[in-house]
Amino acid sequence: MTPLVLLDYAAVLVFALTGALVASRAQLDIVGFAFLAGVTGLGGGTLRDVLLDRPPIWVADQTYLGVVTGAAVLVFFTAHLLESRMKAILWLDALALGVAVAAGAGLAQRLGQPPAVVLVMGIATGCAGGLARDVVANEVPLVLKQGELYVTCALAGSLATVLAVGVGAPPALAAALTALVTIGLRAGSLALGWRLPVYKPRPPRV
Amino acid sequence: MTPLVLLDYAAVLVFALTGALVASRAQLDIVGFAFLAGVTGLGGGTLRDVLLDRPPIWVADQTYLGVVTGAAVLVFFTAHLLESRMKAILWLDALALGVAVAAGAGLAQRLGQPPAVVLVMGIATGCAGGLARDVVANEVPLVLKQGELYVTCALAGSLATVLAVGVGAPPALAAALTALVTIGLRAGSLALGWRLPVYKPRPPRV
Amino acid sequence: MTPLVLLDYAAVLVFALTGALVASRAQLDIVGFAFLAGVTGLGGGTLRDVLLDRPPIWVADQTYLGVVTGAAVLVFFTAHLLESRMKAILWLDALALGVAVAAGAGLAQRLGQPPAVVLVMGIATGCAGGLARDVVANEVPLVLKQGELYVTCALAGSLATVLAVGVGAPPALAAALTALVTIGLRAGSLALGWRLPVYKPRPPRV
Repeated sequence: MTPLVLLDYAAVLVFALTGALVASRAQLDIVGFAFLAGVTGLGGGTLRDVLLDRPPIWVADQTYLGVVTGAAVLVFFTAHLLESRMKAILWLDALALGVAVAAGAGLAQRLGQPPAVVLVMGIATGCAGGLARDVVANEVPLVLKQGELYVTCALAGSLATVLAVGVGAPPALAAALTALVTIGLRAGSLALGWRLPVYKPRPPRV
Repeated sequence: MTPLVLLDYAAVLVFALTGALVASRAQLDIVGFAFLAGVTGLGGGTLRDVLLDRPPIWVADQTYLGVVTGAAVLVFFTAHLLESRMKAILWLDALALGVAVAAGAGLAQRLGQPPAVVLVMGIATGCAGGLARDVVANEVPLVLKQGELYVTCALAGSLATVLAVGVGAPPALAAALTALVTIGLRAGSLALGWRLPVYKPRPPRV
Repeated sequence: MTPLVLLDYAAVLVFALTGALVASRAQLDIVGFAFLAGVTGLGGGTLRDVLLDRPPIWVADQTYLGVVTGAAVLVFFTAHLLESRMKAILWLDALALGVAVAAGAGLAQRLGQPPAVVLVMGIATGCAGGLARDVVANEVPLVLKQGELYVTCALAGSLATVLAVGVGAPPALAAALTALVTIGLRAGSLALGWRLPVYKPRPPRV
């Protein structure tokens, strides 16, 4: 199994956990858990594959479907052990974001896409699953939460892939760096309040 | 015309009716009716075709576009005759769900996809149109309504396709069984309150 | 550069401006501006390209990514100069709608698609970016605002492409006519209250 495939599995698993946790907050049944786990876990990779005109990962390899189902079952029976499901969602989402960005940017890189496309694929793969989860579950998308870094982390991570491969780093190292940068920035935003200046009109207007 | 194509037409027509009924609740004009009818009627099949890398059904055969337009016009001029549009939406949606699941799972089966992919394609084809309708119209998605079976019905129906074809049933019989199982479960949920146990944390937490 | 490519650039740019303006209303940071500008600017063309099984415009030509980023930066630093950002969004969106419909219908026409598909591609290209913007930013979709023409404008514009090409007009003239019809209708709806009769049930029911 190549590192890229391992990354894909990891991203799918952790995003699926967040989807199932959101399902637990909505008090759905086990199939609802699996549905949201699937949308969240497979959304980003599916979008990337459709855009790159490849068969979706889970059509080519059905193990992914087992992974999201397993994540759903696990959360259904153990989520009550968590002290705060919201906190678990935020931190697992940060982890999944990092791994998914590494997988998405890495794949685009390996397919020989130019740097700008690598950046977009990293962002799309990282953000689409969580965005779909939040839109479907009618929660405020993490992607657009004001005063937090999110897309910025995915962008910085994808940039790490481009730069690392540019200076000749092996793909596995580039992927590790990418995940580290993405997760590190997101963790800094969640725990320490790191942020970029937000738009503020001088005199308030509509 | 093969049975699969007939199923596709039927699913598109009935889903389009539900889209137009939602448009009537939002008091849109006739073009808004056609837009929501099209999104709902063609959403599921289009998603399935994009995922399976086939041209969308309505690009290959424009009759589908006539069907959704016809459904929109019909509803625009007759919806006021209905006693309850909400009830009509729920029951037509149940009917459309069953037919769409049969069409989606049946096509994936005929293309030689493995069982897990057949299940997902049945669910995606069945649920995507209604989900798009509800997200666009800003209604609570039927897919995620707490305490009702919805995705479960699509899953059970798709399973019926896999099992029926597995034991050698002809495609038409498998499709009929699939629609029956899906609609039966959904009807039981709507009329008799059938449901799966939902997730409930022992002590309430956030 | 062909007229169709110029149209695509213009539609992407103006839609990106509206996405960035919506981001300013949500008080996002500069990366959030670029994200919403990208979703809005590239959403319609990407949908069209996926449906027509072509690589998305911005994978084939990364200038588009520069265009949406530039639009985001521009708006981030100048939006406070606008008297009403809501008004700017509405009118830029009208302009973008017209250009995008011309680009979408024109491309479908050039690829030899039948008239019904040309109509749908014009509507999808014109409406998908703004719809994605509004769904992601949790605003009421312009597409479905009651008592305004929106999809109708896209439909009329696409019809202009079909008719103009049908009577032998050169593509550039057809595109100009399409944009004119679409923008004119939308402007009439915004400024003069043009509208189609909306659905109204005789006795109010649920």
